[in-house]
Amino acid sequence: MKKNIPEKSIERLSQYRRTLLNFLKNNKVNIYSHELAAAMHITSVQVRRDLMLIGYSGSQSKGYDISDLVSHIAEILDDEKGQNVAVIGVGNMGRAITSYLTGRRPKLNIVALFDIDNEKVNRMISGVYCYHIEKLEEIFKKENIKVAILTVPADASQQMATKLVIAGVKGILNYTPVPLKVSSSVFIAEYDIITSLEKVAYYAKNNNHI
Amino acid sequence: MKKNIPEKSIERLSQYRRTLLNFLKNNKVNIYSHELAAAMHITSVQVRRDLMLIGYSGSQSKGYDISDLVSHIAEILDDEKGQNVAVIGVGNMGRAITSYLTGRRPKLNIVALFDIDNEKVNRMISGVYCYHIEKLEEIFKKENIKVAILTVPADASQQMATKLVIAGVKGILNYTPVPLKVSSSVFIAEYDIITSLEKVAYYAKNNNHI
Repeated sequence: MKKNIPEKSIERLSQYRRTLLNFLKNNKVNIYSHELAAAMHITSVQVRRDLMLIGYSGSQSKGYDISDLVSHIAEILDDEKGQNVAVIGVGNMGRAITSYLTGRRPKLNIVALFDIDNEKVNRMISGVYCYHIEKLEEIFKKENIKVAILTVPADASQQMATKLVIAGVKGILNYTPVPLKVSSSVFIAEYDIITSLEKVAYYAKNNNHI
Repeated sequence: MKKNIPEKSIERLSQYRRTLLNFLKNNKVNIYSHELAAAMHITSVQVRRDLMLIGYSGSQSKGYDISDLVSHIAEILDDEKGQNVAVIGVGNMGRAITSYLTGRRPKLNIVALFDIDNEKVNRMISGVYCYHIEKLEEIFKKENIKVAILTVPADASQQMATKLVIAGVKGILNYTPVPLKVSSSVFIAEYDIITSLEKVAYYAKNNNHI
């Protein structure tokens, strides 16, 4: 169902929802596509196109009902029962990500951390239990974890990805600088900060010449 | 110069370089496009296309000279004298990013952190000096900072971006969940983890139905 929504639209749906929740908090009830577009710094054509993609259209006179639209986006993005997430590699970055994400989205729960360091294993870190990597398959099955955030050192990256696939992962957010090779049925989002920073620095440098 | 290289190619150039440096470390001297492609899990056509874009071609018989190619990519991506980078917002994420990036790329130096918290201001944090936000313009000028990583709380995000532009920033890596509105001469890379994680979770959920 709804398999053919492009990645960029999925990203924007996530952003629409957060923007809409913000409007709701400020007691706004209805919103026109041009208002939502302005808050996101995109065009209203883009907003309407994305929402049509998920079968949603507003009323000409009052715009979209915000809380109804939020529910509709939730039906697309969220799993009704919630999804459990694991963080693999509990260095500074793994810890910061765990703290940052905890409680942000009600349907995405970080339920387990994994590491090999005995100082970390079998302890609560940033409010989540840290298991030894060798427990990966067992805990993934037990907790029905299908989503993992990978923040291990670069040289362990591919090996861990392979373990994750064996453990049944279906999506990986890859924070390591190593492009991963996994079966095509697993979705990977590459999220390496060095690549992103080098890109920003490149355009910043060339902007200087304007 | 070389302004028209697309974002995705710039990202891959960053990844090629790291992959090539790895091969160099293992005493490899020459590399064929298909070997580089295999290490990155992309096609060799893609590799050749990207390298042609930067005016580079290998020898048919021996492939590319790795260290020469690394230098060539450096000429495109790096600023010869290096670029100074600031991290704005020194929470868990700001600290983790600072530790992670320090020393990773010789031409990208994190030279200043900024926050408003008196517990953090005027101290070294993760090896870098933390200034009060009110010093932003002064320090950006003094240190010639054109690149910033934004990790402030969501409600301070746009206001800080505006301050950064006034201080002369040319590129922002935006870790906050708020899409930023700035002058079109400033390059923004949106890098919000919630959006990325929701995207991964969406595809992971739908992968379950395969």
